[in-house]
Amino acid sequence: MAITSHDVARLAGVSQPTVSRALRGDERVSAATREKVRQAARALDYVPSEAGRTLSTRATRRVGVIVTDLTNPFYPHVVAPLHDELSSLGYRMMLITERSDEAVAQETLLDQSMDGVVLATATTDSRLPAQLERRGMPHVFLNRDTGRAGDVASVVDNEGGGRLVARELVALGHRRVAGVFGAANTTTGRERELGFRLALAEAGVGLPAERVVRGAFEYDTGYRALSTLLDVREAPTAVFCGNDVVAIGVLNAALAAGVRVPEELTVVGFDDLPMAAWEVFRLTTVRHDLRELSRQAARLLVRRIAGDTGAEGRRVVLPTEFVPRATHARVP
Amino acid sequence: MAITSHDVARLAGVSQPTVSRALRGDERVSAATREKVRQAARALDYVPSEAGRTLSTRATRRVGVIVTDLTNPFYPHVVAPLHDELSSLGYRMMLITERSDEAVAQETLLDQSMDGVVLATATTDSRLPAQLERRGMPHVFLNRDTGRAGDVASVVDNEGGGRLVARELVALGHRRVAGVFGAANTTTGRERELGFRLALAEAGVGLPAERVVRGAFEYDTGYRALSTLLDVREAPTAVFCGNDVVAIGVLNAALAAGVRVPEELTVVGFDDLPMAAWEVFRLTTVRHDLRELSRQAARLLVRRIAGDTGAEGRRVVLPTEFVPRATHARVP
Repeated sequence: MAITSHDVARLAGVSQPTVSRALRGDERVSAATREKVRQAARALDYVPSEAGRTLSTRATRRVGVIVTDLTNPFYPHVVAPLHDELSSLGYRMMLITERSDEAVAQETLLDQSMDGVVLATATTDSRLPAQLERRGMPHVFLNRDTGRAGDVASVVDNEGGGRLVARELVALGHRRVAGVFGAANTTTGRERELGFRLALAEAGVGLPAERVVRGAFEYDTGYRALSTLLDVREAPTAVFCGNDVVAIGVLNAALAAGVRVPEELTVVGFDDLPMAAWEVFRLTTVRHDLRELSRQAARLLVRRIAGDTGAEGRRVVLPTEFVPRATHARVP
Repeated sequence: MAITSHDVARLAGVSQPTVSRALRGDERVSAATREKVRQAARALDYVPSEAGRTLSTRATRRVGVIVTDLTNPFYPHVVAPLHDELSSLGYRMMLITERSDEAVAQETLLDQSMDGVVLATATTDSRLPAQLERRGMPHVFLNRDTGRAGDVASVVDNEGGGRLVARELVALGHRRVAGVFGAANTTTGRERELGFRLALAEAGVGLPAERVVRGAFEYDTGYRALSTLLDVREAPTAVFCGNDVVAIGVLNAALAAGVRVPEELTVVGFDDLPMAAWEVFRLTTVRHDLRELSRQAARLLVRRIAGDTGAEGRRVVLPTEFVPRATHARVP
């Protein structure tokens, strides 16, 4: 049996219209009563109807952006365009940089002071999206999603990007290839790996477990991976990295180990962050449009906040492009 | 004549005790009345006494951190320790990443939902600190302050750091030195330049205007500066950069221009960000304790929030240390 606003009213000890007003954030209801109603609604897992919300006067014109991994240089680069797009749509932005989704879920401002939320570092095992759903809090995914069908998300064609890299490596004659992929609980990590594996398989090139490393999308993951990969009996001639930051870790480790890139080892990244183009790296990578990724997330969220059901279940998938620079070469 | 709570009461059309309660955020006052009182207080520039505030029940246990320059990799590295220290002190953190202090000043959450604010990107010409002061909002400066005596701040001994670099360059025989300093409206930019100039002057080494560049603390500032500096009649043999990010811009430009570092050009940074130690750079720089800088800011703020007047006017100044790596050498 579905929980209704009458159940919430009974638990909170107020009238049903007060429940509706309180959940809409109507300021004619005292803050104390609003809080009491919210607690009751939460205790009962009561989900106010989206239509009711959009008719409401509750509009804080404020959006939260959740990033649990800010030192990854990817995120500062999406925060600025996200801010600007939201601003042009009339919304202010607050960054919530908790260490975990569990900590984010405790942030009461998410209910009281935000019209919606952008999830920028979702993992496939996070319970936060379901919690936001239950609270009736509009949210969209940026870059990573949960991998489930109903996600409203602005993402990259990660699988297609992984395929592009595999085909380039095969065309360059590489047969002993390696992967330093992202964490297995991220869609970006999984999909890039999947596309890479599928296109390798199509070309009859194997990717044995000893030439695969998985880890956080961090410099250290790449730096440490290189020695692991060079240690195997048949060392790789090319490494595809889950993102540019990991690839930059590999490049630095190669320099420290005296491995010449690309003469002895081809290294390819993903994202085309500004630092990938720095003269010291000139990293061959996969480009997607970071600004557009952020813009689309902002637009999807604002449509959801406005109650536009046409936005429901929508995924914007941005194309990828291979960017040849100086870290790839024919097999030695 | 000082504005009192009675004046605010008259303008808002409420009783004096209601003004006190409203400004303390007492939830027995309706949200609408609280807002009316706040608007009246702001219109009159009314400053509630700090003692009154600390007696209040208004405690959101939430702190705002203001960063107007998030793509500068310095800031992500202070956000994480700041979050952790605030968390251990019982406070949640929200990042406000507006493009300008003017936009920050419009953020109403600063009044309603935050107990205090950390200003991480203050400039000497910003009006935001005075606005926060008038609102009675506890705030501290992190890394940069306004340069005024009353600032409560956690900062670095920038002048001392600048001196360290000048002495090292002089000891290495450099006489034609250059500076790529930060923006002139930042205390970090000014003080590093000042210390560098003073110690050069003590050694009888000049720093003519043609060998000085100032700009935002960004990669591009350093990248573009190199060609300017190499273009002068007596090109420098050593460059001191306002921070590591600028120095990394110089190093990349040097690589592109075929200038060998350190054989032909010594390059020194400031901050010792993790990327300064990357194998491709091995940047000689000035270290301070980023974690401690953030921790001290968090502690100072929490003391101010608690009404501890011993915190007033306090500046924590962290020492600096010269970190010799691979980008400095004797004058060629």
